[in-house]
Order: sequence, then C-alpha cells, then structure tokens
Amino acid sequence: MKFTDFDKTEAYKNLSNLSEAGKKLDFTRLMSPDRVAAYTAAIKGKETLVYNWGAKKVDDKILAALQSLADETELIDKYQALLEGELINTGEGRKVLHQLLRSGAKSATGKTVSHESRDLGEFYQGELARFLSFAEKVRSGELGPAPGKSFTALAQIGIGGSDLGPRALCIALENWAAGEGIKTLRTEFISNVDPDDPSRVTASLPLDQTLFILVSKSGTTQETLTNELFVKEKLQKAGLDPAKHMAAVTSETSPLAHNPGYLDSFYFDDFIGGRYSSSSAVGGLILSLAYGSDTFRAFLEGAAAADKAALERDILRNPILLDALIGVWERNFLGCPSTAILPYSQALSRFPAHLQQLDMESNGKRVNRDGKPLAYATGPIVFGESGTNGQHSFYQLLHQGTDIIPLQFIGFKESQRRDDFTLDGSTSQGKLNANLAAQITAFALGRPGTDPQNANKDFPGQRPSSLLYGERLSPWTLGALLAFYENKVMFQGFIWNVNSFDQEGVQLGKVLAQKVLGKGSEGSGDPILDAYSDLLGV
Amino acid sequence: MKFTDFDKTEAYKNLSNLSEAGKKLDFTRLMSPDRVAAYTAAIKGKETLVYNWGAKKVDDKILAALQSLADETELIDKYQALLEGELINTGEGRKVLHQLLRSGAKSATGKTVSHESRDLGEFYQGELARFLSFAEKVRSGELGPAPGKSFTALAQIGIGGSDLGPRALCIALENWAAGEGIKTLRTEFISNVDPDDPSRVTASLPLDQTLFILVSKSGTTQETLTNELFVKEKLQKAGLDPAKHMAAVTSETSPLAHNPGYLDSFYFDDFIGGRYSSSSAVGGLILSLAYGSDTFRAFLEGAAAADKAALERDILRNPILLDALIGVWERNFLGCPSTAILPYSQALSRFPAHLQQLDMESNGKRVNRDGKPLAYATGPIVFGESGTNGQHSFYQLLHQGTDIIPLQFIGFKESQRRDDFTLDGSTSQGKLNANLAAQITAFALGRPGTDPQNANKDFPGQRPSSLLYGERLSPWTLGALLAFYENKVMFQGFIWNVNSFDQEGVQLGKVLAQKVLGKGSEGSGDPILDAYSDLLGV
Repeated sequence: MKFTDFDKTEAYKNLSNLSEAGKKLDFTRLMSPDRVAAYTAAIKGKETLVYNWGAKKVDDKILAALQSLADETELIDKYQALLEGELINTGEGRKVLHQLLRSGAKSATGKTVSHESRDLGEFYQGELARFLSFAEKVRSGELGPAPGKSFTALAQIGIGGSDLGPRALCIALENWAAGEGIKTLRTEFISNVDPDDPSRVTASLPLDQTLFILVSKSGTTQETLTNELFVKEKLQKAGLDPAKHMAAVTSETSPLAHNPGYLDSFYFDDFIGGRYSSSSAVGGLILSLAYGSDTFRAFLEGAAAADKAALERDILRNPILLDALIGVWERNFLGCPSTAILPYSQALSRFPAHLQQLDMESNGKRVNRDGKPLAYATGPIVFGESGTNGQHSFYQLLHQGTDIIPLQFIGFKESQRRDDFTLDGSTSQGKLNANLAAQITAFALGRPGTDPQNANKDFPGQRPSSLLYGERLSPWTLGALLAFYENKVMFQGFIWNVNSFDQEGVQLGKVLAQKVLGKGSEGSGDPILDAYSDLLGV
Repeated sequence: MKFTDFDKTEAYKNLSNLSEAGKKLDFTRLMSPDRVAAYTAAIKGKETLVYNWGAKKVDDKILAALQSLADETELIDKYQALLEGELINTGEGRKVLHQLLRSGAKSATGKTVSHESRDLGEFYQGELARFLSFAEKVRSGELGPAPGKSFTALAQIGIGGSDLGPRALCIALENWAAGEGIKTLRTEFISNVDPDDPSRVTASLPLDQTLFILVSKSGTTQETLTNELFVKEKLQKAGLDPAKHMAAVTSETSPLAHNPGYLDSFYFDDFIGGRYSSSSAVGGLILSLAYGSDTFRAFLEGAAAADKAALERDILRNPILLDALIGVWERNFLGCPSTAILPYSQALSRFPAHLQQLDMESNGKRVNRDGKPLAYATGPIVFGESGTNGQHSFYQLLHQGTDIIPLQFIGFKESQRRDDFTLDGSTSQGKLNANLAAQITAFALGRPGTDPQNANKDFPGQRPSSLLYGERLSPWTLGALLAFYENKVMFQGFIWNVNSFDQEGVQLGKVLAQKVLGKGSEGSGDPILDAYSDLLGV
C-alpha cells in the first residue's frame, strides 16, 4: 500500500488528457432518460439511500479513468487499513476509528481493533451501552434533577465537532420524532465564547429541568470550559446543584474525566476526530436522550450500511467512492474550486454547516501526508442551504453567474411529520420535489436564448449536479447520509495524499489569542496583534 | 453618465498591469501598526461603524488606481442617479429605491422622487407611519386576537427576501432587546414549501396568541401562498378566525391587496427589490412588532447614515465604496472567486445567509445591462458563519488550504445582553475579541516553518481580510451594517456593468416545476424532467 502525491500517478495524467473533452461534454446531447436510469447506485439495508449521477460531466471513458484512479491509488485497500486500525492519521500518529463506533465490536471487515492491548471495539460498545442506558433512565424519569422531577430539556456545551454535527442531527430528527409520536426532549446548544450565546440559551431554558451535556475531548477547549463555568454560575444562582444537572463526554485522559461533579461521564478517545465524533457519545448521548436509544441505534445501522457499501471496488456499485472521484474530477480537471450541498428538506437546514466543517477541515490542506507542499488543488469550499429556500436566494448565481459550481441535491419522497396540505392538485411535498426535479433539469440543460438582446433571460445550463435520495429522512437514512459524506471526504483525502484527520490550521489563532489575553500594559510583543486588539478594546 | 463593460475601461488596464505586483505584496513587510491605524474610515452618526483595511492586499499605488476606477466609471454619479429615481433596473424598467425608505420623504441627495405623479418618498413614509402605529397597537394590547387578549408571538410567512433579511435582523436584535429590557414578542418564520416547515412552526406556537405576517410583493409566490393556506387551515381547526390573526405586506397591485381577510395590509412597490426590502414593511413590520417602533426607527437611521456616507467621492473616506473596489480587485485581479463573512457575534449567525442572497442574487450575472455576455468574472461566492464557531470548523482550509479566500470580519467591543463572565482575568467578550484580533494577524502574517518535515504546522499567511467594527450590535449599527452591504453590492454591480436588481435566473426552475406538477400520465413532454420527477415519486 503506497501513498503517492496525486500528480505523480498515471491516473492524473490520463485524467489531465481527458480534461478538455470533459469540459466540452454537452448535457443536451449526453443526457437521456436511459442515462438517468442507468447512472444510479444505492446503499442498501433496512432502508435505501440512492445516488444518481446522470447530470454529472462524465461519460464511460471518464468513468473508466476514475476506476483506474481508484485502483491505482488503492483507495479500498487504504480504507480497509483504516478500518482495521492502521495509523492513518500520520501527523498525530493516531488510528482513525469513527467507523468502528457503528460496526459492532469488530471492524466492518470483521477484524478486532486493539491499542495497547485494549480491544477498542469492545470499549466503544461498552460506552455505547452505558450512554444508551443513561439516556433511557433520564427519559423514563428514573434519573431526574430531584426526587420526583424529570428532565425536559437538554443543552449541549461544545464547539466545532462537539456542536455542528450533533446540532445538525438533532434538528434533522425533530420532525421525524414528531411524525412518529416519539416523546421528545427539547435540545439547545451553547457553542460560542460570545457571552450572548450562553446568556441567551440559559435565560430561555427551565434550568431546574435542564440536563447540560459538556463535550470536550481534550477537556481544555477554551470556549467550552468558559461556557461550562458560565452555566454553572447560572445554576448556582438559581439555587441548583450543578452536579445534578450535568453529564460529561470527554476522553479518559482529559482533566474532566472521572469527576464526581457530573451525573455521569462517557468516554471516547483520540482515534475519534472531533468532526467525525457524531457517532460516539458526542452526538449519541444527546440524540438518544432527545429521541430515544432505538432512534440512535437505527442511526448507527444506517451509518454502518454506508460504511459497508464503501468497501465495494467497482466504482459503479459504490456510490460514495464514485461521488468522491467525481468531486476530484471537478476540482482538479474541470477547475471548480467550490461545491454546494442543497438538501430539499427544512430538517437538514444545518446539515451543510456540518459538512462544511467535515470537508473543509479535513481536506483544506496544502501539504501531503509527509508534510511536503503540494502542487495541486485539494479540498474545495463547501456551502449550502435548504431548498426551496436557496432557489429564492443564491441560485441566481448558480444558474447565471460566470463560474460553474458543481451541486449535490438531497431529497426524500415523503415528509417527516406526515402533515401535508393539498393545493391545486398537489401536496406540498409534491411541490417540493417538483422543484428539485426542475432544478436538476434547468441546471443541466438550460434554455437557449431566443432574443440576443435579452440574454439575461438565457440559461446556459451545463451546470453539473448529483442527487442523493431516500424514502424519508429517518434515523437510518440520516446515519447513511452522514457516513456517506465522512467516507467521501476520506476517499478524496487519500487521492490528494493529505492527512484528512488532523487540523493544525487551528493552532496559530489559539496561540495568538492567548498572547492578547496575557499581554500586560507593554503589549504582547507582536505590534500588529496589539494594533488589532486595541481597535477592539481588548 | 456612461455604462461601459469593465474590461473596456482604462482602469481595467491599469489594474491588470498592477495585478502581478499586487499578488506579490508581502504582508510581513507591508504591515505596521501605523498602517493599521491609517487604513481606516468610519460611518458616523449617533453611533459609529468603522472599516479597517490594514490587512488587505493594497498599497497607495493600487488605492490610487481604484480611485481612478471609481472616478472613470462614475460610481458616485450612478449612485446619485439611483437615489434620485433613474431607471437603474433596466431589465425590468424600474427605479431602485430601497434607500428612499430610510432617507425621509426626500432622497439622500435632497430630491423628491416621483412616479406617475405620485411622490414615492411620501408614500413610503406614509406606509412606515401606518405599520409603526399598527405595531404599537399590537404591543400595547390595544389590538389583539380577541377582546382582552394580546398577541405574544409573531410568525412571518415569506421566502427569499421576505425571509432571509427579516429573519437575520430579528435574530440580531433579540439579545440587544433583552439587554435593554425591551419587551419582546417571539418571532418565527415559515418559508419552505416543505410541509415539515409550516407543520413544525405552527405546532410550536400558541396559535390563539399568534399574529401571522404574510409577505409577498407579487402576491403570487407559490411557497408563500401554499403556506398561507396551510396556516389558515390550522387556525380554523383550532377554532380561530384567520382574519383576526393575519396581516399582509404586499404591493398595491397584487391579488392580496385590499383584502378584508387581513387585520391590516401594508404596501411597498416594484422599486423595492425583494432582497433589498428589509427597510420596508417586509422587515420593518415584524421588527417593530417584536422590539418596538423606536427600535426600527433607530435601525433606519443607521442605514440612512451609511447611505449618506456612500456618497463621498474620496474612496479613502468612503468605506463602502472602498470595500466594493477592493472586492473587485480581489475578484478580477487577484483571482479569488469567493469571499467569506465572519461575524464575531452569535447574534449575527444568520446574517451571512442574508448577505449570500443579497450579493449572489444581485451580481451573479453573466450578461451586462444590455443583455450582452461578459468576458470577465462578476459576483463571487459568499459564505460564512459566526466566530469563534467557524474557527473550529472551516478556518482550517482558510489558513492552510490551497486557495486564498478574502475575508471580512465583523466585531463589537461590547456584548448585547451585558451578561458576561470573567475567567482567568478576562471576560468572554474579551476572549471573543482576542480571538478576532488573533485571526486577522494569523491570516495576514502566518508563521514561518521551522521544520521542513512538518510543514503541516506552517502558516503561509498572506490571506487578506478587512474588519468592520462598532461599539455594540445595536439597531443603529445593524442598520448601518445592512446598508453597508447593500451599497457595496450596488457599487460592484456598477463596476461590472451588470443589472444588480433583477433575478431572471430564478425563472426557468419555476416554469419546469409547474410542468412537473401539471403533467398528466403521459408526462410533461420533457423526458429528462420526467426521469427525475419519477425518481422522486412526483
């Protein structure tokens, strides 16, 4: 298994040679109903998540070159090695094991994964069982803030991976739980060191019925520790005992671990990166508290199904691998520096913000796995908002701007709440999906102009998009969706030969912020830093 | 006053010649405390909003070339003509008058603006007075849903400009109102045609105490009309009379106008574009209902101050014009296709989503004002999230990715709620701003590597950013901030010679969605459209 810079591969040369022809592919000639039907692959399990690439700028020749890229760079072998505990995170000398959180006690390939003679699959399963049991005790009222009282609200204190993923997932399942008649605890999040954030959230909560979940792997995150103490002061001022209102999710080596100041503590470790931690207690505790342990188990099953599907070597039967390859094709050979994710589901309103972290923090790297600068583009900008809202916002630029931005649509046949409204012969869900189908078509085919004096009404088309769709946004589908993106980002990182699992880019800002906070009257020693902190009155 | 394609100007040639030197400008040599202090300009009024461009890739030579660009393309003359009612929106043959909403009965240049013998300044002032009075009656309880009952919650039904701006502004002032002890009505928004959106919001509201605000300029927006009827059905099922729970904001020519089915109706017209309508009743009604008429008046004053500041011809004393010019410099001569807006204030969490619409829908155009295709790049991709949250997310790519993304930071010296917490010798607000100062410095100066084997810990720097800051995020500051961006986008549109005030790019999708919804068993006649709508079960 060899790690090679992308521009040193045979596949890179082949794809470079195909680049001009690829840019010239014309959707009005390329696309047909047969192509749409054929260019499809699914993740299957209890439910199904389907990927359709009919409107991507690829033909059979390009797909063959992408298959060669996958084979030459041994993507599946690298993925297997990762699953089985190899030190894929070279910069930090760590294993990468978020998939093990959802494959049971063994890896998706059936292997035991150990570290220093500890069976990590068993460790993760043990913590899973502990936090699911804790969640059910809270939900049943067996564990409450005081005798005879129950928790009705949850507030997670965390930032980055301890916030964006869990928050997006909680929002994503709220309507589903309502549609299923599942008892729900209110969920809030405190993330920003901006004091207005914890102040607003705590003022809005029934503190005496609120369970706070403190999440920090290292136990040293400045924002999170500050907000924990902010919250504890509010609890004390309300005459409440913080130790009866707080649980912790951290690593066993953190200063927060084994602290009797929490109702309970749940552990994960350095092999679970922050942005990949939604499948651990970081996401799982609040999800199972809010919507029940069965809900979180179904979520893990969906994610496990996607992890398994990602092992397939034939790219036409592996939607995740194919999407990763097409993304690289667009980034490095069609020259597209950004991509948009457009879920046609209001429940996924914050899912793009999570994917923004997942993708940009993982692959926004300019050096290879050995710390050598790279001569090609790596991770793109990722942004997005839910449709149909985006249609009335930035889609103007997507349709008629001067740059081409590859798109990924997400849709579901059914609504979550099953509370629909029929007007003019169609349901709102029908209108939503009619818009989705219309957008894919409009972006791809455009509309030729009839009046050269009014080219502002022309649609050039030739805007590529893919579609991910399922029956309904359920826990299983959400898990599959999350793992789809986690694995896509991993494959792209392998291709670009970057370490997708560290984030050294966050360090310098931390160091300089501490310099500002520690500076005396003579300044920090860094005149530019002082000039800006003076402007801001700090 | 001449409208010329950008690449036909003298300034374009000059700037092209400066491009290579500009790319080579080195912040480690360029920047000094004196530069940071000097490269600053403010919008002044009752409060102040300051712009600092010390960390932008410009020197005095480039600034002189940008001044020549402003002069040659007559940006201030065009702005004056717009203020005074010229038909700047050529595609639709319309005036562009959102600034008139906040300059009193006359334009910011002191002129009366009329259309078909109606004084539009007076019309807008009249509607303003009407909706502020309506808001105060609701707030005092004089106008309620039933005798002796008051409205406690508001829900706006609208999409695009009727949603993103008003929503961002409501969130932005919630904490400020709490900090000031101002009585607040809860605000919610229903935008998406996804049935889960209105279903969730209506299920969460005390319907008998809720005032719904229906917003659609044309009165024909599919999503909004569908959601209005969805809501009305919920009201009726709850035994409530929709006519006692709903006000409308629309144009006088819309099918919704003069309808006794609303408590009252407030009007604006075709000269107020959707994404520019926050200063009309579209944003003003819900803001004055939620936080009081004085709050909205202060907001308008801040916006008017920014409109006035934008009239200055010297770019070094006109922060809005300068920011627009620097944005064009980065887009067309430094080769940056995207830009990020990073507010260090949780209250501005949805402000970037509004700016995304404002900018991308206005300048995401590929033809000039006469409908001729353009040979240069226009509007960039705009995205962003609040700091410090973003630091733990996509900043990795901003610091160490392969592309350079120009940044705009926004900060405030004081918090909104004045509920802060001191830890390790600093307040949370101090920590927030220390992070902001640290990021500007880190992006500009980077940190040279010491170990060539670990270049993943190097920071190349040379990432440009600007800083907009004020004392506190108040209504005045928020108004100034909103108008800052509205006018910046306008200036850039003038430079690119595009019509920033139409949005023909949204039309094709609407037409195709109707084809899907209207298709019979034989299909829509468009086989690709049918293929995708079949996949989605519609």
